[in-house]
Amino acid sequence: MPFLRNAWYAAALSSEVSEKPLARQLLGENIALFRTAEGVGAVEDRCPHRFAPLSLGKVQAESIECGYHGLRFAKDGKCVLNPHGNKAIAPNAHVRGYPAHERYGFIWFWPGDPARANIADIPAFPFNEDPQNFTPVFGYLDVAANYQLVVDNLLDLSHVEWLHPMFAQSGGVDAHKTEYAVDGVTVHARRAKPNVELQGLARLYWTSPSQRFDARSNMTWMPPSNMSFDLGATECGAPVEEGVCLPNAHLVTPATEYRAHYFWSIARNRQVNDEAASAKLQAIAQRIFTTEDIPMIEAQQRNIGNVTDILSLKPVSIDPDIPAVRARRILAELIRGEETKAQAAE
Amino acid sequence: MPFLRNAWYAAALSSEVSEKPLARQLLGENIALFRTAEGVGAVEDRCPHRFAPLSLGKVQAESIECGYHGLRFAKDGKCVLNPHGNKAIAPNAHVRGYPAHERYGFIWFWPGDPARANIADIPAFPFNEDPQNFTPVFGYLDVAANYQLVVDNLLDLSHVEWLHPMFAQSGGVDAHKTEYAVDGVTVHARRAKPNVELQGLARLYWTSPSQRFDARSNMTWMPPSNMSFDLGATECGAPVEEGVCLPNAHLVTPATEYRAHYFWSIARNRQVNDEAASAKLQAIAQRIFTTEDIPMIEAQQRNIGNVTDILSLKPVSIDPDIPAVRARRILAELIRGEETKAQAAE
Amino acid sequence: MPFLRNAWYAAALSSEVSEKPLARQLLGENIALFRTAEGVGAVEDRCPHRFAPLSLGKVQAESIECGYHGLRFAKDGKCVLNPHGNKAIAPNAHVRGYPAHERYGFIWFWPGDPARANIADIPAFPFNEDPQNFTPVFGYLDVAANYQLVVDNLLDLSHVEWLHPMFAQSGGVDAHKTEYAVDGVTVHARRAKPNVELQGLARLYWTSPSQRFDARSNMTWMPPSNMSFDLGATECGAPVEEGVCLPNAHLVTPATEYRAHYFWSIARNRQVNDEAASAKLQAIAQRIFTTEDIPMIEAQQRNIGNVTDILSLKPVSIDPDIPAVRARRILAELIRGEETKAQAAE
Repeated sequence: MPFLRNAWYAAALSSEVSEKPLARQLLGENIALFRTAEGVGAVEDRCPHRFAPLSLGKVQAESIECGYHGLRFAKDGKCVLNPHGNKAIAPNAHVRGYPAHERYGFIWFWPGDPARANIADIPAFPFNEDPQNFTPVFGYLDVAANYQLVVDNLLDLSHVEWLHPMFAQSGGVDAHKTEYAVDGVTVHARRAKPNVELQGLARLYWTSPSQRFDARSNMTWMPPSNMSFDLGATECGAPVEEGVCLPNAHLVTPATEYRAHYFWSIARNRQVNDEAASAKLQAIAQRIFTTEDIPMIEAQQRNIGNVTDILSLKPVSIDPDIPAVRARRILAELIRGEETKAQAAE
Repeated sequence: MPFLRNAWYAAALSSEVSEKPLARQLLGENIALFRTAEGVGAVEDRCPHRFAPLSLGKVQAESIECGYHGLRFAKDGKCVLNPHGNKAIAPNAHVRGYPAHERYGFIWFWPGDPARANIADIPAFPFNEDPQNFTPVFGYLDVAANYQLVVDNLLDLSHVEWLHPMFAQSGGVDAHKTEYAVDGVTVHARRAKPNVELQGLARLYWTSPSQRFDARSNMTWMPPSNMSFDLGATECGAPVEEGVCLPNAHLVTPATEYRAHYFWSIARNRQVNDEAASAKLQAIAQRIFTTEDIPMIEAQQRNIGNVTDILSLKPVSIDPDIPAVRARRILAELIRGEETKAQAAE
Repeated sequence: MPFLRNAWYAAALSSEVSEKPLARQLLGENIALFRTAEGVGAVEDRCPHRFAPLSLGKVQAESIECGYHGLRFAKDGKCVLNPHGNKAIAPNAHVRGYPAHERYGFIWFWPGDPARANIADIPAFPFNEDPQNFTPVFGYLDVAANYQLVVDNLLDLSHVEWLHPMFAQSGGVDAHKTEYAVDGVTVHARRAKPNVELQGLARLYWTSPSQRFDARSNMTWMPPSNMSFDLGATECGAPVEEGVCLPNAHLVTPATEYRAHYFWSIARNRQVNDEAASAKLQAIAQRIFTTEDIPMIEAQQRNIGNVTDILSLKPVSIDPDIPAVRARRILAELIRGEETKAQAAE
């Protein structure tokens, strides 16, 4: 299945991109990400002279310089310097440049028509830019599976019971109903757990003497594969703002059809100036993803071989599949829309 | 070349299979092996819901539970529990179940028609279940080669002279004749070495003052790829039962066309209660297989690429090839018989 | 693109080949290299009996013995011993044998018509056999790239400025002109740097009080992919013989279309009896090739996938490409000549 092109995808954590360029495969394309004084750049990672990766070069002012023979390229991909001979720049001396923007602790890139790239369309994770109230931690994982298997995992709130026994809730999957909703091209899976025993990540930050709280796990998916997760707990009956809030970003970007980049962040409105608490939260989350979710997702991909659309295999359906199946259908429809438009333009 | 389906193959050592399921590829199929209170089970290692390997789950009573969403499957592959929503079990909620049985220190499985699986047909290695008289040691190797190359190695008694110099016999290959015999679908290669200097594994257990003995190496192949090896030595002219007996099992099972599982056991009628002697014998044999036989067999496969029938390459023939070539022909005939029957049934 | 067959290629360093055979893939063929009392041998690394690599065997007198069943083959590839049964040698009991010769610290082999192999045609590196005046050091690297990308690197004297900053020269690429010349099937790239600050490898051996010298870097390519490099420096205006001379051999041999063997030597006419100086020079050169050149060349190959003729991708051209492009054209012409002759012969 082709990828949606006219969309913002996370390309990197902000902390990964510096003056030293970063090589990253995104939507099957090799891209060099780099940072200049004026902001981030994303260009095709292949010099048109002898096809060396530009990511092995270095930033020079507002350009990236090839590390083999010194040709320089601006962020839009045009060659701006040939240091050899008569210094002439050949007409074919350019690479592809991609719109790129840094926001919410991530580097975003737009693989489609540059004219349609609007930074206002980057999905909002304002808690990652609200240091008065929230402290975020970030993580990255390279997953040997189709990106939609990672999305399936995140949109399915039930698997916690089996895959994450440390966070399983008393009463199991039957204790609370998960509500599903589709709002335009956005899919919601919401699980309210009123008046339950202290449980989950929120418990780490619970300082009240109460032995029960109202917990919630609300996942929101936006195309192509960006998710916002409202996780938290408050005193029974109290507004959510008064309690522990742990808003997450989960951003999944195809590297190829069979490999995905998974970027995550978890912000918290408790212990906001406590670096040790940040380190602990980062380590807990990274370990769960690394040792519990990712091995299962990669095993799924190995078991289906080179299939990318799991629904084509006519799987057995169970209730918790509903939101992920809806998200898959919405995305497939958007991709079909781009293909139809592309064919009409030919 | 297809595999023989209606046959017992070794799937694992008994010691490898516990309540924690074992993932193993057998005849190109991914299978979960597990042990319940009532015995061993072998099912397709792919949940029909989201294709997670069942081997990542756990045993629950007489079933195996998927570690991702909790569906449970009985040994015959039928789903016996869906914990979600209205708990309905979909008609397509099943995996393939294989007849499996534990015997002689191995787990056996039958990849063919379950109705034809008869545990009486499992090849007999009674010395592995005779603790009064014999103590067996076991080993397993994963071989990156077609299973028939491993069989060729075992049915050829001459290679010892070159590949295992530690066990080479005085006089070389010419010193004693190897007799070949075919008995139905069974192939024998027998090498009697009367009145020779002390040599080989039997020497390890020789306590008599005699400086010479009657040695023997008798290999028996049974389709598809199970071998019994009568190795031993006795006083010159004495019955074999009075001497050192080291009966072996050598069981080779295709993982794929290019990878094989090799299970072996060596029992001994000497030092039967000596654990240190067991550990030493296990280490010696495992090391010889690992450092001498397997590298040669894997190098053969690399040299012939994706060829699985070595005879199709018109190799030079030498005398010691005879039993292995006969075994290959018998097996090919049995496979053709299954294919003819399958076509007739269509 | 096919390889030139009727040519001498370096197959190994002399120090790599002993009585214990060496397995090496050369021009896509698996070859066993070995040394007997009378000289070196090169034969197809695949016994015609069961296709075991002969390189896993051992040298016996003037033959190589298979380590699996003891068949022996002479340097011309003919089976000279079958130790089994009636000892008859089957008519098809032979492997391919290749002309091979040891010279200048390297083992050379000829993959073409043996009748045309003439050891007088081996390219001359006399400084490697002149211990009174020169001490050579040697190195070997396995490169995951087409051999011509390695040649491109060596024939391009400009990349030093970007890839080897430690050896970059004051004034950059514009400071001195590189002269190109084609002489029959030989290509020259010559860079004279008169009256410059002390720089490069020659500086390591400069003992004069002069603070400037005349430096030079003259590369000569001979088909298919053997290069001689005249590197050195002398007092301004003095003959080159009076100064530091560091003559190099750079020999590149295809393993496959996508992997190359790179053999190099650097001789010096200074500190000729100083073993520590040899070790230091070997380490410096090997580290530069390993950490600077090879990663870039392998990255180029990854970026062009399975393309072997980089010119087919219509790359941007710059001045320093000229000698390598000429060498590629000469070699392509020679290969076409062999193909035409082969077709005419059919």
